[in-house]
Formats: sequence, structure tokens, C-alpha cells
Amino acid sequence: MALVVQKFGGTSVADAERIRTVADYIGRTVRHGHQVVVAVSAMGKETDELLHLASQVSSTHPGREMDMLITAGERKAMALLCMALHDIGIASDSFTGSQAGIITDIDHTRAKILEIRPERIRKALDAGRVPVVGGSQGVSVDRDVTFLGRGGTDTTAVALAQALGADACEIYTDVSGVFSADPRVVPDARRLKRVSFEEMLEMNAAGCPKPAMRSVEFARNHGVRLHVRSAFTWEPGTWITEEEPSMEQALVSAVVSDTSEAKLTVTGVPDKPGIAARMFRALADRSINVDMIEQNVSVAGTTDISFTVPREDLTATHAVVESLRPEIGATGLTADPDIATVSIIGAGMKTQPGVTATMFETLAAEGINIEMISTSAIRLTCVIRRDVSEQAVAALHRAFQLEGAS
Amino acid sequence: MALVVQKFGGTSVADAERIRTVADYIGRTVRHGHQVVVAVSAMGKETDELLHLASQVSSTHPGREMDMLITAGERKAMALLCMALHDIGIASDSFTGSQAGIITDIDHTRAKILEIRPERIRKALDAGRVPVVGGSQGVSVDRDVTFLGRGGTDTTAVALAQALGADACEIYTDVSGVFSADPRVVPDARRLKRVSFEEMLEMNAAGCPKPAMRSVEFARNHGVRLHVRSAFTWEPGTWITEEEPSMEQALVSAVVSDTSEAKLTVTGVPDKPGIAARMFRALADRSINVDMIEQNVSVAGTTDISFTVPREDLTATHAVVESLRPEIGATGLTADPDIATVSIIGAGMKTQPGVTATMFETLAAEGINIEMISTSAIRLTCVIRRDVSEQAVAALHRAFQLEGAS
Repeated sequence: MALVVQKFGGTSVADAERIRTVADYIGRTVRHGHQVVVAVSAMGKETDELLHLASQVSSTHPGREMDMLITAGERKAMALLCMALHDIGIASDSFTGSQAGIITDIDHTRAKILEIRPERIRKALDAGRVPVVGGSQGVSVDRDVTFLGRGGTDTTAVALAQALGADACEIYTDVSGVFSADPRVVPDARRLKRVSFEEMLEMNAAGCPKPAMRSVEFARNHGVRLHVRSAFTWEPGTWITEEEPSMEQALVSAVVSDTSEAKLTVTGVPDKPGIAARMFRALADRSINVDMIEQNVSVAGTTDISFTVPREDLTATHAVVESLRPEIGATGLTADPDIATVSIIGAGMKTQPGVTATMFETLAAEGINIEMISTSAIRLTCVIRRDVSEQAVAALHRAFQLEGAS
Repeated sequence: MALVVQKFGGTSVADAERIRTVADYIGRTVRHGHQVVVAVSAMGKETDELLHLASQVSSTHPGREMDMLITAGERKAMALLCMALHDIGIASDSFTGSQAGIITDIDHTRAKILEIRPERIRKALDAGRVPVVGGSQGVSVDRDVTFLGRGGTDTTAVALAQALGADACEIYTDVSGVFSADPRVVPDARRLKRVSFEEMLEMNAAGCPKPAMRSVEFARNHGVRLHVRSAFTWEPGTWITEEEPSMEQALVSAVVSDTSEAKLTVTGVPDKPGIAARMFRALADRSINVDMIEQNVSVAGTTDISFTVPREDLTATHAVVESLRPEIGATGLTADPDIATVSIIGAGMKTQPGVTATMFETLAAEGINIEMISTSAIRLTCVIRRDVSEQAVAALHRAFQLEGAS
């Protein structure tokens, strides 16, 4: 008998029929003799609808009230899922984040889990019941309802798995695993049987949206085995685990692109200490996340600095930097919304520097210009024009021979 | 400075614009120097929508999960109302029933309030903030979320008013008060400035839906002054208070009709002890609420028993009684769904028996047959044909001269 945490995302429980389908599946797991704890997201687009309602009633969005509002979505889903379980003879109880003992800090709309006191969950399990926990929510040390942020149900699931010592955390979603490239772009992309936490985190950073990066970090830090799989086909998906010595290390595991960023270039920046720090501190103060940064070789005492930010922050970033330009002494500032990043990721890259050359040659052969480069031990990222990002992904997928069945 | 509890029902907060309108009104009350605690229902038809969802996922409706589901509605409304208050500069905090310290029994879907521990509400008031409490909800002694039932927000408001020692409890709704008759039936019906708790309870029992009877009982038992008024015109409505010695006692205050009941008649019942008890116990065991009961004078050792039940229980009631008929030895059973009750209510009736005669004469003059009669000290109810109920209400309203401005 295993204890598994099963997470179901919004599309998995988008309507009454989907909820009944998910209940049937949980029921089968239980009838196979396993203990199951469920973490469930709000139905379909409900979170978006709640955010829209908030924007209709108010221009200010106090965090405490936003969290009270948003968590109503998971509350509905968990109660309905429990009813569907009861209907097929599976005893279950729904639990809010608070009832599940998920204690968070007071940072509303993006609270962090401080501790889990899963007494009620354990008690339900001991009584042979299926606890269904509302995703992405908790109770703060001030006894207020908190929301962990979008995608937070993955984190809820992983944290519960850790607190309960579960054998695995299964993330059921609308994709059937982690792929060597986005299957919508590369039709013969391969589902990976297994990736390491480090590879997954690099893929998340490079634009792979699922599972949520934060939950992968949590899983890595606490050694929770993740299994990303489909709530539509129910077939085995991708395991995300510690890198094992015996794990066959593919040179490159996946090609990932990200079209959500934009690039800014500050030109003629005096090449002296403190200039970049001044600029990036000002952006950090506005909570603008800078991703890649590149500084040219200094020529005649000045340099150019390029960096990327989320495209929705482009206007704000431009304003901040423009306001600092006289103080910094930079001569120019350009904003470019039409970029993409394309990355190759693989644990095997660490010891195989030839990968870099292959990536550059492949892009060159496609006539694709590289505008910025960023590297980590197991990732290589290039900034290119946005309109050729799919072409680049397909070419790199071929070049590294990632196609074919897993 | 007064402390008032303001209750807003579902139609009062049906959409974003209504929520902003309600927030403006609360803001005005606060700026006039008053302390306000708000109890709010789910938006518009949301509770119905949640019930519909429940019926789609499950045929069983476990009470614990139903309550978790339904209370999501008030949670949304209270958070949105707080945001709208923040937006106009009024500091406010939303509180679930649990956070508001509303402790209930474990009778899910219709929990009863056992105690209120309003520490967090008081603290918010002391800090100059407006607490907005989700209506009709609490936390059980088992730490589960409970729902007080439909219309329970009135009860939440009255109970909070009592616990906080508020100066008044204002019930804002989609009618502008309590009327001498339903204004849709009698266009010149008069809004009553004041009715006693006893009159209001009799009116509730006779079919007047607002405010919820249970909240009026609570208010009477604890001496909470109720003010029923409109969330659309905002004009003063009807005060429901203790009957004061100085209160001018109208002979008859209001005419109320109820078309939601049905009548059953059991004929040829042997006139011996225990027969009626056997039948009504069987109905009570099925939670069927019997309202009026009338037994004919015994003729030749048998009698006829007529009684009314909610029309939706007619089929079930018929089945129960039919199954008992051999045992009881009754010769016949008829069911009649096409009845109505019409009632006159007034504290002044106690000492004015002539009212009965006027009522019977008025109905006779309209050619309306009286099928059953039931009385209390301040109410007189007749069962008549359903299709003449509006005619009866209008005629009685004229006969007792209830029309005109308040």
C-alpha cells in the first residue's frame, strides 16, 4: 500500500463531467489499496473570472481580500469533488488550506508555506477517508486566509507529500508529461520518462510552464518524487526525481522556447562601478524581474547593457531606466518587444562543451541571428527574433536527435 | 455614535455595480460617525447555481461538503464588498463565519448558532474598520464549516447585533419594508412604519417571506431592534420591535396570502385516540411540516381530518398516509394542490373578536368559500381556492381599510 498525493489542475476539473471522471480515477486508486490525498485547483477559468470581478468592483486590490476572494474557487472545486467521490462510495472530506494545517507567512497573493500541521489530514487517512485539500491556499500566522499564487496547487501537493512522507506526488494536468520540445511546435517531440530536478528547473526557467517551478524547487529541496501525467489519458508520464548515478544522461534532454520576454538595451553607459547596480536596484524596487543580462566589452570608456524582462513590464522598465538615464550618463535606450529565447537543457551538457558549437551552427544554418547568450551548467539560452522561435526549436530538436518514442 | 449591523441580501449585491452602490451607502453611514458591521449574502442567484453544480456532480449531497460549497458564495461577496469599500477609502476586513466567531452545532445545511465569540469583529471595530461578515455561515464545534440554511444571512445579522450589543440591525433587501399586503397584489398597500415581533412572526408563518422568520424569532428572544428597508431606494422602511404600551394597535395590520401549500383530507377515520398521532408522527419522521390541521365533528364514530403541507411534499405525504390507511382504518384520502391560505394579522385583534366576523362576511360577499380555518391570538387564517387568493387579499385589504400612506 502506497500513500500518494494526487494534484488535479483547473482543466482537469473544468466541469461537472470532468469532476466525476477525476473522482472515478481517484476511486480506482483507492480500490487498488492505496491511500490518496488530493490537492485540487479551481475549476477551469474560475480564478480568471474572480480576478475580473475584483477589477469590476475596485481599482485597489487589497491582498487580504483578494486572497479571500480567489480561494473561493478551490473551495467550490474541493467540495464538488468530495460529493462526486461520495457518489461512487468513496468516503472523503474536503479541507481548506487552514483546515489542512498549511501555515503561511502574511505575504498575501503570494504567501509562502512556513509549516504544515497535517493532523486532520492524517486523521482522515487513518479513518480510511480521502482528504481533498483546496490548492494554493493556507492560513497565515495572523489567522488570515492566504493564497499561494497562480500555479500554487502544485506547491500545495508537493508540500503535503513532504509533510505526510508520501511515496510520490502525482501532478495530473492537461499535458501527458514533460516533452523534449513543445509538441504543438515539434510534432515528433518525445515524452521524457525521467528528468532530474535540476533539468526541470532549468526548463521552467527557460519557459516550460508545467509543473510550477516553485513546486519543483520544493520537491528538490525535500526529495519529493514528482510524477507529471495526464488527467485525460491517465497514462504514465514523466518522473522528476533526484539525478541518479545510474540515470542515463542524455546530452540534451529538451529544447524550450519562451516568447514572453522583451529586451532593453542601454547604450553609451560610462564603464564605471555602481552604474549597473543603480539601475537594477531601481528595477528590483518595482518588483520587475530581470532575467538575462549582457554587457558588451567596453569601448572608449563606455559600454552597452542589454537585459530581458517580462514583456508586460516593458513599459514600466523603460520608464524607470529612462528616468535614470541622465544620472547614469547613458546616451541611448532602446526597447525591443519582438524577441524570444530558445534554450537547450540537459544534465549531460556539463561535460560536453561541443553542445554549444552545435547549437550555434544549427541556428546559423537556419539563418537565425543570435542576439544574446546565457548559460548555466546544464542550459544554453539564446535570444533570437520572436518570429523564428518555432523554426529554431524545430531545427535544434532535429540537430540533437531528440525525436522518436520515449 | 451608533453601532449598527447592516445586512445586504443577494439582490442587493447581485453584480459589481450593485456592490459598489452598497459600498457607497456603507461609506456614508461610516462618514456620519457610525460604527457599521456588515453581513452579506451570496451575489444574486449564486447559491442556486452552486446547488445546480452539486446536483450535476452527485446524487448524494453530503451535508459537510454542501456547506463547504455553498459558503463559497458569501465568501466571494464579502471579499468583493471589502474591495469596493477600500476603493472609496473605507478600511474594512472580510470575515468568514468561523473568523467572526460564529459557533454552531454540527447540523449541516441548517446549522444553529450556539454562541458568538466576536473578538476579531470587536478588534476591527476598535481599529475604526468595517467588518464584513459572510452571511449564513459558521464553524461547528467539530471545526467544520457550516451553513445556516437559505435566508440565514438575516440570522447572522441579528445574532451579530445581539452579540455586539448593536443599537439596531438593518435588513436591506429588495422590498422597502413590511406592507399591509403584497404590493404586487394590492397596489395601494401601505408600508408599515412599525410592527411587533409577534405580528411579524405571524406574518412570516402566514406566508410573508421577509425577513426570515428565524431571524425575527432570534431578534424577539434577544430584544434586537430590526429595521427592514430597501437597498434600492434607501428610504426608511419598517421597524420590527417589542410591542410598546404606547404603540398604536391597529385592529388589523396586514393581509398575507400563501399559495405554497396543499391540502389532504383523510375521510372515515375511526374516532378513537391515537389515530391522528400515528399519522402525524409518520409525517414528522419524514421531516414533512404539517401546518394547519382540522378535524370534523365525529359522525357515527368516524371523522374526517384535513391538513395542509408544503405543496412540494404533497406526493410524499399522500404516499405515507395511503400506506397507513389500512392500519388506521380510514375509508378515503384526497389530495388537493389548488388551495391558498389568506390571513389577517394584527396585535389589536386580541381584544376585538368582531374581526372574525368581518373577515368571513368579506369573503362571503366575494363568493369565496372557506374550506378550513385556523386562528391565533393575533392571526386568522382561511383556506380558500388558489385562483381567488388575490381577490380575497384585495377585498380584505379594503374591508379593514388598510390602504393609504403610512
